[in-house]
Amino acid sequence: MPNVGGHLSRDFEAELRELRSRLLAMGARCEQAIHLAVTAFLERDLGRVQEVVALDARIDRDEMEIDELALHMLALRQPVADDLRFITTTLKCVTDLERIGDEAVNLCERVGEIALAPAVPPHPELAEMSAAAQSMLREALDAFVERDADRAEAVLRRDPEVDALYGRVLREVFAWMRLHPDEIPAGQAVASAAKYVERVADHATNLAEQVVFMVRGVDVRHRRSERPRP
Amino acid sequence: MPNVGGHLSRDFEAELRELRSRLLAMGARCEQAIHLAVTAFLERDLGRVQEVVALDARIDRDEMEIDELALHMLALRQPVADDLRFITTTLKCVTDLERIGDEAVNLCERVGEIALAPAVPPHPELAEMSAAAQSMLREALDAFVERDADRAEAVLRRDPEVDALYGRVLREVFAWMRLHPDEIPAGQAVASAAKYVERVADHATNLAEQVVFMVRGVDVRHRRSERPRP
Repeated sequence: MPNVGGHLSRDFEAELRELRSRLLAMGARCEQAIHLAVTAFLERDLGRVQEVVALDARIDRDEMEIDELALHMLALRQPVADDLRFITTTLKCVTDLERIGDEAVNLCERVGEIALAPAVPPHPELAEMSAAAQSMLREALDAFVERDADRAEAVLRRDPEVDALYGRVLREVFAWMRLHPDEIPAGQAVASAAKYVERVADHATNLAEQVVFMVRGVDVRHRRSERPRP
Repeated sequence: MPNVGGHLSRDFEAELRELRSRLLAMGARCEQAIHLAVTAFLERDLGRVQEVVALDARIDRDEMEIDELALHMLALRQPVADDLRFITTTLKCVTDLERIGDEAVNLCERVGEIALAPAVPPHPELAEMSAAAQSMLREALDAFVERDADRAEAVLRRDPEVDALYGRVLREVFAWMRLHPDEIPAGQAVASAAKYVERVADHATNLAEQVVFMVRGVDVRHRRSERPRP
């Protein structure tokens, strides 16, 4: 039965609210996981790693629970139009969120590689990259639950800023490795850490693109890849 | 109206067949894009790059068209049970496929970085990694459209093989960079190329995990991340 009638409609509204609040909670955990992982990396502190691994496991459960709720709503409430699009967009967005948890764990694996290294290249941009990626993630999710395309577009405009910071890290790491050929693995660990943070910003960008598509029906997901880049 | 009644049901079956054939076509294009991009890299041949960029644009359109068909089916046919799960899994899988196209373009960007380099570290494993990733992708998609969980599980068992090859590439690249500190960017390009191929295998693994979940209702997506890895 479609989503009409008082009782069913009230249930459906309650489920939509539940879906939104679970998404925001999952997003907050992703933000925290990245924050902790980057802090562990900057402080070369292996003590925080277990906390990130536990958060990632919780994020994985979030994905499964949100998928299940979304499937339940599709099967029993048979939503149409905007609600249908909101639910199918949710199915896509949790995949990006879940992978942010994976990036946090990836980052933690690099902490072990630099914790005992005698020297590590400077990487002052990493904290700034991480703050930008976290704020893009938060904004993209708020835009999603508010169905606010303008706010999502503001997120899209910030991706080049993170890419530029990443480019700077890489150039500095290469210059450092050239002078410290015995410490190439430590340099590589810093390059990888920056890459993971840059990927978090990419996931936030993907989320924002989905929001614009959901609200405006205009697909902006592939504007970037339509430019021949090489 | 639910999926009952002769006429509607025939339409629905036709749409399901269409969805399957579009998915397979998209997957075949992803396979071709990776094959071309790795060949361009191995042969340091910039001539193939435009072809990969065009394929990636086609893959992006595939994603949008498949999403649209899936949404249409959810809205108008209101499928339940297995069919609902097949369609929602499709929505998730096209995201992984689309990102395989992106990895192919990423790989091409690295071709420019090594094309003019005076020396490049040896990377004999790259072709093997690429062949494995392509075959995992093909198998995962076949398992998906056949709803065959055994076949999907066979894909999952192959991921460590690609990870091991990637580890070998990295170790060789680091050793090479140590001896060629002036050629660190070329070494980095090879490491990145191997990483992109490894990520294609990861996407194929994600697809296979989705298939197992769809068929068995058992979520194997997060077994890996439940082990504390660092």
